[in-house]
Amino acid sequence: MPTEPNEPLDSPEALERRLRWIGATRYHSLHPFHKLLHGGKLNKGQVQAWALNRYYYQSTIPLKDAVVLSRFRDRQIRLEWRHRIEDHDGSFDSEGGIERWLQLTDGLGLDRAYVESTDGILAATRFAVDAYVHFVRDKTPLEAVASSLTELFAPNLHEERIAGMLQHYDFISPAVMTYFKRRLDQAPRDAEFALNYVMEHARTPAERQAVCGALTFKTDCLWVQQDALYHAYVTGMIPAGAFRPEAA
Amino acid sequence: MPTEPNEPLDSPEALERRLRWIGATRYHSLHPFHKLLHGGKLNKGQVQAWALNRYYYQSTIPLKDAVVLSRFRDRQIRLEWRHRIEDHDGSFDSEGGIERWLQLTDGLGLDRAYVESTDGILAATRFAVDAYVHFVRDKTPLEAVASSLTELFAPNLHEERIAGMLQHYDFISPAVMTYFKRRLDQAPRDAEFALNYVMEHARTPAERQAVCGALTFKTDCLWVQQDALYHAYVTGMIPAGAFRPEAA
Repeated sequence: MPTEPNEPLDSPEALERRLRWIGATRYHSLHPFHKLLHGGKLNKGQVQAWALNRYYYQSTIPLKDAVVLSRFRDRQIRLEWRHRIEDHDGSFDSEGGIERWLQLTDGLGLDRAYVESTDGILAATRFAVDAYVHFVRDKTPLEAVASSLTELFAPNLHEERIAGMLQHYDFISPAVMTYFKRRLDQAPRDAEFALNYVMEHARTPAERQAVCGALTFKTDCLWVQQDALYHAYVTGMIPAGAFRPEAA
Repeated sequence: MPTEPNEPLDSPEALERRLRWIGATRYHSLHPFHKLLHGGKLNKGQVQAWALNRYYYQSTIPLKDAVVLSRFRDRQIRLEWRHRIEDHDGSFDSEGGIERWLQLTDGLGLDRAYVESTDGILAATRFAVDAYVHFVRDKTPLEAVASSLTELFAPNLHEERIAGMLQHYDFISPAVMTYFKRRLDQAPRDAEFALNYVMEHARTPAERQAVCGALTFKTDCLWVQQDALYHAYVTGMIPAGAFRPEAA
C-alpha cells in the first residue's frame, strides 16, 4: 500500500485530493473477494453467501441514514438527506433499494424469509455494519456525513459488477441486477452533496483530518465484510450458525 | 457442529446445561488459530499480532464492566461487579490485568506506545470488541451479565495456553504469562457469580433464551477476533493500516 501523502490539509481542494487517495487505496473494489466475484470465479453458493450477508448492510442503511438525519437541526440538510431513506425504503406503492436487493437474493434461490431474518449472516458482517450505525450516532455530524463518502467510488465498482456478473454467471439475469443499475444514478447525486458539505464545513486541518478518518473508518467497515466472506466461503472456515451453501 | 438441544429451558438447571453446551460447541478454544498458537505452529510475528490485537480486548474490558455496573441501581451488585474493574486496572500502587498484558507485549518485543495506541489492530478486532460494549449498554441488564459467561470456559483454555506456549516458544518466559496465571483464580469467582445471577434472575423460558443468546453473541465476539487473525496473519491477507510483522 502506498504511503499516505504528506500534503497538509489546508484547503478544501487538498481535502478532496486526500479523500480520493483514500478511495484509490482502500475502497473494497480492491478486495480479492470482489475480483473473484466479478471475474466469474465463485460458485453459486459463494455468490449466495455474498448476497445474503450484503442484505444486512443494505437493510441497515435507512437506519443509519435516519440516525444521520437526527443529528441535524438544520431543516435544509434534513430535506436533502431524507431522500436517501426513500431510495432504500421506497414508498407504499413503489419499490426501493431493499426490495431490489431481495429480487437479487430471490433470483439466487435464497428463501426470502431466511434472508430477511438475517439469521445466517456472519457475525463479522453484523459487527461491521452495526459499527457504522454507532459511528454516525457517536461522532460529530461532520464525520457522520463524511462516512457516506464511499459513494464517490461506488459507480465504477457497480459498472464492473454488472458487466462481470452478467457475463460470467448463468444464474444472474439483467432483472436481478436492477439494484446496481439504479444506484448508478443515485450514488453520484448523494456523493456530490456529501463532498460539497465536507469541503465547506471542515474548516481547519484537524476537521479535515477527522473527515478523512471517517472515510477510512467506512472503508474498513466495507473491507471487513469482504475479508469475512473470503475467510468463510473461499478459505472455507464457515463459523457456527452461519449460512452453509448446499453441496454443489 | 452438533444440533442445538431441544430440551425446553424450563428450569435454572436446564439453562445451565444449555450454557455449557454453547461453550462446548462455540467457545474460541475450538478455533484453529488457537490450535496453532498453543501447538507452537506460529512464528514470533504471528504471536505478536495476536498479543497486539488482544490488547484492544483486554483494555476495553474495564470500560465494558463500567457500563455493566452503570446498569444496576442495586448497590450489592455494583459492589460485586466493581472488583472486575479493579482486576484489570489495578490500583495506584499495584498492577492489574492490563499492565500484565503489556508485560506480555513487552516480552514479545512490541513497542509499548504502539500497542497502547491500538493503531495497528485489525478493524475487525475493533468492531467485535466495540460490539461487546454496545451490547451491554443496549440490551437488558440480565443479558449484560450473561454476556460475561464465557469466563466459565476460560480456565481450561488458559491452562492449555500457559503450558503450550511455554513449551513451544523460546521467546515466551513464565514472567510474561503472569496475566493468564492470575486469571486462573479470578475467572472462576466471576463466572460463578454471573452463573448464579442468571440462574436466579432468568425466570421464564424467554428470559433463559435471552441469556443463551447473550452468551452466543459473546462467543461470536471472540470467534470473529480469531477469524480475523487467521485471515490476516495465517492466510496472509493483512489489510491496509494493520500491523505487519518484520520479515522473519
